[in-house]
Amino acid sequence: MSTSPVSAQGAAPLRVALLGAGTVGAAVASSMIARAGLFADRVGAPLELTGIAVRDLSRERPGVPAELLTDDPAALIAGADIVVEVMGGIEPARGLIAAALEGGADVVTANKQLLAQHGVALEEFAARQGRELASEAAVVAAVPVMRTVRDGLAGDEIRSIHGIVNGSTNYVLDMVARLGVPFEEAVRQAGERGYLEADPTEDLQGLDAAAKIVLLARAAWGVAVTMEDVQRQGIAELTDADFESARGTGQVIKLIASATRSGTASNPRVELAVRPTLVAAEHPFGQTRESMNMIIIEAESAGTLRLHGPGAGGDATASAVLGDVINLARARVRERSSLSQ
Amino acid sequence: MSTSPVSAQGAAPLRVALLGAGTVGAAVASSMIARAGLFADRVGAPLELTGIAVRDLSRERPGVPAELLTDDPAALIAGADIVVEVMGGIEPARGLIAAALEGGADVVTANKQLLAQHGVALEEFAARQGRELASEAAVVAAVPVMRTVRDGLAGDEIRSIHGIVNGSTNYVLDMVARLGVPFEEAVRQAGERGYLEADPTEDLQGLDAAAKIVLLARAAWGVAVTMEDVQRQGIAELTDADFESARGTGQVIKLIASATRSGTASNPRVELAVRPTLVAAEHPFGQTRESMNMIIIEAESAGTLRLHGPGAGGDATASAVLGDVINLARARVRERSSLSQ
Repeated sequence: MSTSPVSAQGAAPLRVALLGAGTVGAAVASSMIARAGLFADRVGAPLELTGIAVRDLSRERPGVPAELLTDDPAALIAGADIVVEVMGGIEPARGLIAAALEGGADVVTANKQLLAQHGVALEEFAARQGRELASEAAVVAAVPVMRTVRDGLAGDEIRSIHGIVNGSTNYVLDMVARLGVPFEEAVRQAGERGYLEADPTEDLQGLDAAAKIVLLARAAWGVAVTMEDVQRQGIAELTDADFESARGTGQVIKLIASATRSGTASNPRVELAVRPTLVAAEHPFGQTRESMNMIIIEAESAGTLRLHGPGAGGDATASAVLGDVINLARARVRERSSLSQ
Repeated sequence: MSTSPVSAQGAAPLRVALLGAGTVGAAVASSMIARAGLFADRVGAPLELTGIAVRDLSRERPGVPAELLTDDPAALIAGADIVVEVMGGIEPARGLIAAALEGGADVVTANKQLLAQHGVALEEFAARQGRELASEAAVVAAVPVMRTVRDGLAGDEIRSIHGIVNGSTNYVLDMVARLGVPFEEAVRQAGERGYLEADPTEDLQGLDAAAKIVLLARAAWGVAVTMEDVQRQGIAELTDADFESARGTGQVIKLIASATRSGTASNPRVELAVRPTLVAAEHPFGQTRESMNMIIIEAESAGTLRLHGPGAGGDATASAVLGDVINLARARVRERSSLSQ
């Protein structure tokens, strides 16, 4: 006589609550529905999307099932196993994440400005609750840089991280350098293509890149750095003359975020900067085109690692969010099975 | 009154047993000793290297503490929390890994040929024991491709993986294409630099690359493919005329391992190949020089990700091994603290 294994579909579902139905939220919801069978197989239990909290229930949201929408996020997160925060902004996101962790849920967030401001406190709170706050999607979408810095190189000593981590400014700089588009015109085109926010300050002033390098430095060295620690200069003050003189020397201007360690691995001092930087046109950074991102990590033992890919966009960010969701769900299934033994 | 947190150094140590003291084993041992304080902080408990099993106790091993050496691996793994297998070969490695899992240890291995042959059975055995078999280091060292395929893209659908995953053949091909070194001479130089094994068949016939693409395909799609499923052609039969004709068209020859999915994500069919392939000199593969590795992953939502770095060498492989050790150790510490609540 043999006992058949419990099928993934037969196991008790894990309840996933989604906060936000913008570009990323809608992509997360539609993937969870389209890939439900696949995810159940990968996790060992089905993931049940219990609801999607939005501010305005009356707005049209093509592709998002209307019956899942709610304007009561607090009720939604109560009883959730995993809460996905893709609403953006500081409040109510911060309070809802804290409430979710307190209620026993693991949390996935793609909210880099929130993490840059409150991430240290939220991670400490998560640890005290014995829960996880996963944030791969907060830094360059599905390019696996957070995971590499935190997990892959956990047995190594990272010396530095350099990156093109903002796709919209890279698009502008690439248009100017490679196609000779005047700077102002390139900014306008990036706006038209939806690469820049309505208020493009966050991108052009380097604030988005600064938040990402803060999160990477924390993950790499466990240092409680903040946005104020970043020497920051955006691309807004660059002139056509700057681009002209770069071209004359076979170089291009890129907005490079950097984090460099001095001191010892156990007692690191970290220097953080975001600034327009001249790089050789044939350097991997010089070859990083359009809205692509590229991160170069130098580690004592691993050597130099380069990661390249799209660092933004609804689908790419949703991929990273869902990667975190699946991994947290797998851990919950393991937890369940060890408790039942 | 406040209670101080238990220091990492004060927590009960996790016992790590090392099997093998070759290039990788020696690098693992010396990092564990040099970074003991750092690792204790990162894990929340000290890692105690309890011993290093070797075949021949009488051999000189510079940098490896003699008092840790033992020729009794079975005794060493009994009571270990984490067993690191870097001895290579099929037996006794396979039997020792199984014994370690059965004894309740998690296992880290860098042994790609063992995993290609027995990985499916060993992983199933590990899952039944509720333990982990970690194998990041088995595929291109610390370039984080296993972790990306298995964890990062766990919420995505991978379409294909293409890679230069064997550094020694890439070194040979790069010498020929870029420096015009005759093929036979390039093979000889690669041997002199220690890039090729004494019997270079594994590299030159594409067996090493085939094992890696088998492991990646399993991690990406959960398919139980084996070495026999790989359409394999090495570089040994290439002639100077082949390189000449590539050069004439602005292309270079690279040894590309590929895994391409057809069918559906839930019911995938996977085509595996390793073969010399013409690529444009300016393509990222064409730009992959010396003994570097490059992997390109295409996923439905994440888009195209590229990972580049050294795929071999004692230190780089030890970095990946130790990343797995730290992550398993962290999970053990979490397990402990949840059991004590």
